[in-house]
Amino acid sequence: MRSTDRNTARDARELGNRTVLHRILAVLGAFDTSTTRLGLAELCRRAGLPKTTVHRIAGELVEERLLVRDEQGLYALGMRLFEIGELVPVHRTLSSVALPIMEDLREATRKRVHLAVLDGIDVVYVEILGATSIDVGSRPGGRIPAHATGVGKVILAYSPTATIQARLEAGLPALTPRTITTKDALVADLRKIRSIGMSLDLEESHLGVSCVAAPVFGFNKRIRAGLSITGPIGSMDPGLLGPAVRTAAFTLSRALRDAGL
Amino acid sequence: MRSTDRNTARDARELGNRTVLHRILAVLGAFDTSTTRLGLAELCRRAGLPKTTVHRIAGELVEERLLVRDEQGLYALGMRLFEIGELVPVHRTLSSVALPIMEDLREATRKRVHLAVLDGIDVVYVEILGATSIDVGSRPGGRIPAHATGVGKVILAYSPTATIQARLEAGLPALTPRTITTKDALVADLRKIRSIGMSLDLEESHLGVSCVAAPVFGFNKRIRAGLSITGPIGSMDPGLLGPAVRTAAFTLSRALRDAGL
Repeated sequence: MRSTDRNTARDARELGNRTVLHRILAVLGAFDTSTTRLGLAELCRRAGLPKTTVHRIAGELVEERLLVRDEQGLYALGMRLFEIGELVPVHRTLSSVALPIMEDLREATRKRVHLAVLDGIDVVYVEILGATSIDVGSRPGGRIPAHATGVGKVILAYSPTATIQARLEAGLPALTPRTITTKDALVADLRKIRSIGMSLDLEESHLGVSCVAAPVFGFNKRIRAGLSITGPIGSMDPGLLGPAVRTAAFTLSRALRDAGL
Repeated sequence: MRSTDRNTARDARELGNRTVLHRILAVLGAFDTSTTRLGLAELCRRAGLPKTTVHRIAGELVEERLLVRDEQGLYALGMRLFEIGELVPVHRTLSSVALPIMEDLREATRKRVHLAVLDGIDVVYVEILGATSIDVGSRPGGRIPAHATGVGKVILAYSPTATIQARLEAGLPALTPRTITTKDALVADLRKIRSIGMSLDLEESHLGVSCVAAPVFGFNKRIRAGLSITGPIGSMDPGLLGPAVRTAAFTLSRALRDAGL
């Protein structure tokens, strides 16, 4: 076999494999928070793949416990995905150190406590403690544009310029009429956050909801996460709650550094 | 193309795809709680696959954010796996209803609170609240044989006979010298659990640790989960703690039924 033939064969194989991974992710990606169980027809429609393909892939995924199929023949995401997800180190090592401190903050403030990390230009909630009287629109594993939330802004404020630039270049979509949507306003807010050591989110991610967030640093003093407390806007006094969140964030930062994380 | 040719072609394609899924899972499965970052050589060794294959698959997984690669070139599981895992309905719907009740139980007892579900013949911890003074060996996403732990035994006690039979047929491995390892002893313990409405785990899963667990029922009064509190064996008085766990489990069962879960 000539070298070009080998390359062509390899390219074809790579294309084939990539297609398989894409198809697997298209099937898994068909499920979301409001659609947890799907029949074959709807699974095909959402995955954008033909019935025979989805039937075959779903069968393999069931065999590997990445999907389960109930008595009515509906598919759902399987426990093995949860088990793999729990091993993701950004989540696991951070959560194990953070949870006791988050419990203390919850007990002291009776607010909903969030821990989030930056992933690209969004934040992802890794741990949430505490119910609230109103829906604040957050859930573990939930993803939100970093500029539009308290935890996201506080992480951006202490991130390298390139990270902030990436967020600006991707645009600043509005989640509510109060979301910061211009470059100048965001840059000014980030400067303010650095000067007071915490960020405020006044109905910027969810109407009726506000939040106070403080930065969490790890090994090398690098920004690792944002810690926040959230509640109905009338119940949140930043002057009162800021010191509590900042204290917990300092404690968590020191615990991470002590653990070499 | 004759029908048999088509079948052969389809079989070959299915075999190819299945191999790809197997390989992907072999690469993802190379990571565990103690090994969160891996270089290419060690990744190959653990996945049992040749270097070129792992290099290609890992590259695709990085592209899809299922893996991340750090500055030193080490691979780790990526946030997208955590995000997908958080959508698994057994975990998500149960956790959202259970967490406030678990927080109350934690506050009232100051013990470590576990929520676990049965998956096959094992239990998987879906939520854990509360640090303990000693290592009790449990973590969210952790898997343990059902007969060897309080939450597992209480779920088995209220499960269909076929489920108990499957556990018995798979064997009753000992996690400690106190784990129940004979069929007769397990059957007798499950009968006792049904009569008192809770299970005790006296150093059966971890030496020095005991636990009291109560059953959580969902829609159709089917067993859904086990709720437990855990602590150092000297600090656990079942007579005192049993009513607290049972109360929380009743509350959670009613909340699940009210939510149609």
